[in-house]
Amino acid sequence: MRPEEAYERLRALGFGDEQAAVLFEHFSDAERRGKLGHGFSRVEWLETLPDIEPGALPVKVDSSPGFDRWEGRGALGYLTLAAICTDLEAAPPEPARVVVAADCFPTGMLGHWVRRLTRAGLTAMLTATSPARLAHPAGGPALVGTNPLALGIPAAEGEPVVVDVSMGEVTYGEVLAGLAPAERLVPFGGEHAHKAFALALGLQLLVESQIGSGYGAVLVALRAEPADLTAFGEARLPGR
Amino acid sequence: MRPEEAYERLRALGFGDEQAAVLFEHFSDAERRGKLGHGFSRVEWLETLPDIEPGALPVKVDSSPGFDRWEGRGALGYLTLAAICTDLEAAPPEPARVVVAADCFPTGMLGHWVRRLTRAGLTAMLTATSPARLAHPAGGPALVGTNPLALGIPAAEGEPVVVDVSMGEVTYGEVLAGLAPAERLVPFGGEHAHKAFALALGLQLLVESQIGSGYGAVLVALRAEPADLTAFGEARLPGR
Repeated sequence: MRPEEAYERLRALGFGDEQAAVLFEHFSDAERRGKLGHGFSRVEWLETLPDIEPGALPVKVDSSPGFDRWEGRGALGYLTLAAICTDLEAAPPEPARVVVAADCFPTGMLGHWVRRLTRAGLTAMLTATSPARLAHPAGGPALVGTNPLALGIPAAEGEPVVVDVSMGEVTYGEVLAGLAPAERLVPFGGEHAHKAFALALGLQLLVESQIGSGYGAVLVALRAEPADLTAFGEARLPGR
Repeated sequence: MRPEEAYERLRALGFGDEQAAVLFEHFSDAERRGKLGHGFSRVEWLETLPDIEPGALPVKVDSSPGFDRWEGRGALGYLTLAAICTDLEAAPPEPARVVVAADCFPTGMLGHWVRRLTRAGLTAMLTATSPARLAHPAGGPALVGTNPLALGIPAAEGEPVVVDVSMGEVTYGEVLAGLAPAERLVPFGGEHAHKAFALALGLQLLVESQIGSGYGAVLVALRAEPADLTAFGEARLPGR
């Protein structure tokens, strides 16, 4: 799908200018980074969703120093996370804020959102839940989502470090985009797959302990000194 | 080493009753859970450290709603994390608190501390840094610690879920205890080892973005509804 077509099809789904621009920016960032499972293939996927509400807007329902709670209220998770980023940019944490988002799905490439927050001088850690697709390494039904963990840290020079690790060998997006077979939707790690399963489980229960049922996200944003990365020499660091 | 001997040797190092009891409880919990690299073998290791300060006490140096900052001030990291737990138990987060600890090493089995916080009705996420022992999967020198991530979530019935994942195939403690060869101190995951390396790097930079240089910890503690785990059926969940 060409970029112009993606944008037009988002508008045709009923999204306003601003919302379509947020979605388009996320999908094209994913394409640019080679994460095609989070790219324009998702526009086609959105078209298959039965109950999309293009006019829905997320709402900040609770706020106290160091803590905000949001509800998607039917908005796509992408739009809820974008609204949270806008809010953090306008009033940065002093020095830390935990943000919980309920009814927040799909959330896309989490690295996109933490990268955005590094531009506001923030270190950010973000996780989000998604439908159960990973079974326990010992077998049985799918119990947990691929529940990625993303971390973004501003660097003193050049691009920030952006880590974005799904707990699956492949992401559901890669399966959707025809880039990987569904059989590879297992916790990564081979003989150490119990570690990735445990992380996916722990992150899922962390989110659920805050939102109850459904899908959601937990973000921690911290004021940060930009990282001096000279000690890492020539090593290729994620996100750079 | 027998438990009584471990306790006596901790006292002989100069630790007071209270501090020796905290250390002993951590080491014996590790032994009980089969994490021998974090157990009594660490008493011998403490005896080899040149600059141990048994009388040092950690200090909370900054506090604002939703945020605390601690400094170890020469105390062992175990004791700093124990002091933070005591503080959170006495004044639980309403509803969230991020706690940063600088000069906080060694921190031991992180699952021990998050498990303790689940008993106070809190969901907790904890990471801590340690000397660089993991190289980039592409080769080169050790760049990052095994930097574990621990998550503890109270359960509605029975034991909490406690996830505690080191990013190494083995822990340094296992090497210390003679349970694993040093060559296995590599990011876990085999062909997906870049994921564990990325997590170790991201967690390290997260901590360093808050403490500067040295070793430290970042803890997120949240008031939580106990998790209903019936959907997981008979699956063996970590920590239970």
